[in-house]
Amino acid sequence: MKALQELIEQIEPADSNWRERAWERLHSQIRPRGSLGRLEEVAARLAGIQQTLQPVVDRKLIFTMAGDHGVAVEGVSAYPQEVTAQMVFSFAQGWASINVLAKHVGAEVRVVDCGVAAELPSQWPILHRKIAPGTANIAKGPAMPREHAVRGLLLGAQLVREAREAEGIELFGSGDMGIANTTPSTAIIAAFSGRPPGQLTGRGTGIDDAALQHKVRVIETALAVNRPNPDDALEVLTKVGGYEIAALGGALLGAAAARVPLVCDGLIATAGALVACRLVPAAKDYLFVSHRSEEIGHGTMIEMLGIQPLLDLGMRLGEGTGAALAMNLIEVSSKILKDIKTFAEAGVTDTGH
Amino acid sequence: MKALQELIEQIEPADSNWRERAWERLHSQIRPRGSLGRLEEVAARLAGIQQTLQPVVDRKLIFTMAGDHGVAVEGVSAYPQEVTAQMVFSFAQGWASINVLAKHVGAEVRVVDCGVAAELPSQWPILHRKIAPGTANIAKGPAMPREHAVRGLLLGAQLVREAREAEGIELFGSGDMGIANTTPSTAIIAAFSGRPPGQLTGRGTGIDDAALQHKVRVIETALAVNRPNPDDALEVLTKVGGYEIAALGGALLGAAAARVPLVCDGLIATAGALVACRLVPAAKDYLFVSHRSEEIGHGTMIEMLGIQPLLDLGMRLGEGTGAALAMNLIEVSSKILKDIKTFAEAGVTDTGH
Repeated sequence: MKALQELIEQIEPADSNWRERAWERLHSQIRPRGSLGRLEEVAARLAGIQQTLQPVVDRKLIFTMAGDHGVAVEGVSAYPQEVTAQMVFSFAQGWASINVLAKHVGAEVRVVDCGVAAELPSQWPILHRKIAPGTANIAKGPAMPREHAVRGLLLGAQLVREAREAEGIELFGSGDMGIANTTPSTAIIAAFSGRPPGQLTGRGTGIDDAALQHKVRVIETALAVNRPNPDDALEVLTKVGGYEIAALGGALLGAAAARVPLVCDGLIATAGALVACRLVPAAKDYLFVSHRSEEIGHGTMIEMLGIQPLLDLGMRLGEGTGAALAMNLIEVSSKILKDIKTFAEAGVTDTGH
Repeated sequence: MKALQELIEQIEPADSNWRERAWERLHSQIRPRGSLGRLEEVAARLAGIQQTLQPVVDRKLIFTMAGDHGVAVEGVSAYPQEVTAQMVFSFAQGWASINVLAKHVGAEVRVVDCGVAAELPSQWPILHRKIAPGTANIAKGPAMPREHAVRGLLLGAQLVREAREAEGIELFGSGDMGIANTTPSTAIIAAFSGRPPGQLTGRGTGIDDAALQHKVRVIETALAVNRPNPDDALEVLTKVGGYEIAALGGALLGAAAARVPLVCDGLIATAGALVACRLVPAAKDYLFVSHRSEEIGHGTMIEMLGIQPLLDLGMRLGEGTGAALAMNLIEVSSKILKDIKTFAEAGVTDTGH
């Protein structure tokens, strides 16, 4: 707990003075004010994070955090648990969606075993940091011991800070892999928002109507059994979270402590980010939300975070795929601030519009 | 008219068999079906356009078509007409938003003087293809002679086909520059949709409430004076269009004739594309709409075209900026089709979801 407390104390808000200076430059560029929409907000936020009018987000790294979930035995997913390990293998081989999308945007992918149920061969080129072989079934009791939740948060933070220090990463992405993990993520959303699971639960990888109703009841049971206190984010994570969710939250804490932006993927990565922001509200200043997930609970998190996603492409894949796509928009936002000339620089007539 | 008729006759629908084969592969990849959302639709459409499961959209070129508008004398814009030429100069210098965004996505920008009112120095590195020094004032009569509208369409088509043949361009983008050009574009939308200008008119570069009301009345006057027949797309273009709008429409016709995809920018480029699709409905198969513009009339065109935009970032700049950003998403879509493995290829358990 001491290490977590130290991490939390290192997090400070981004710099509003640099943000204001960025807006001044954006408003004096040779185009109508506000005409680049959301890209301008991203540019100004980057200036506040990096404390410069020349933000750089060239070196990009995505952590795909993997973990399994005891609640899978309740039949909440369309896929069997073995698929988690199979997909981790596919990531390591470069065969999967995240590999293709990350390569396209020039980002590296690093896969982390935070809590996969299977024993993964040590020669697989992933980060072997398993905290436990999957969580316990949240429909019966807490997902993990409180000490494991702390370890998960510290794991994510440490990975980010090491990559920042050793490799100079300028933009992090966070993604997930874990069969059944929309179930704990939805439980987290329900716990923090107080809304009934029936209004928040989606089809995950593609379950039918009957399975969806069952999934809602499993989440209701998990909340009734565990009764997580919404004002204690660590308790919510402990009782209805997951190992990859803890690491995803920790990654944002690590990024915020190092004053580096992080863009989260969809439902699961955003749930991790939400846990982090409930622990440390200032962490939000370093968070970008990549896309609006098709999973219905995601919208509630966006409301709670107050950060609009950059993309809305009907995606619901995970792995960090949305984060990869959004990295490209964040990178171009850094360039609009730096590279578009002002009216004065270009000698164009400015009417102040 | 003979050359235009020949162009129109060369346009055929994209290949639905290749589109279906693409969907089969997309549905067998190691991820839940449909989980990459809109990117999958783009990938399948590319397969149908290029008639392959290995579509390539690597070589990218954006045409920024420039023209002036006689209706500017009615005070419909926040900027004076001289800004059109100033911005063309800025594009040629690489100072403007489109230069920064296109460079980021690896696309070339080619600026075309289709009808700028000013005499532009011949040494400027743009394509000097002026049809006339700006349109006539549409609030008083037709924008241009019918023969000029045909020339504008053929200009756009020729530019695209030459670039395709000489340089092997695989994806075109279309953007605009022209002070006051949201006014003729909105008149086109009103003419085709039959909706009143009051429901379609936006603030362009940023006019205030009083100027907006005035702009609505100018568009109402233009429609009352010209009475364009909505079933005659060439007449609509002639009476309430513009030279850059004609070339933007022609660019789509040229792309469709050459079986190459084109992604249009916001209000003005989409208006040009709409004219082209009204002339030749099959041209729609080759069109991608880059983003949902903040200009309110854009949504009506999206409805009429039945093509959902890829991005919604609150942008309203023009120049081709939205097209540049969307090129990146179109390119990554081509890669997901080719590079993500199938369940069989990767040995991952497929439950058919």
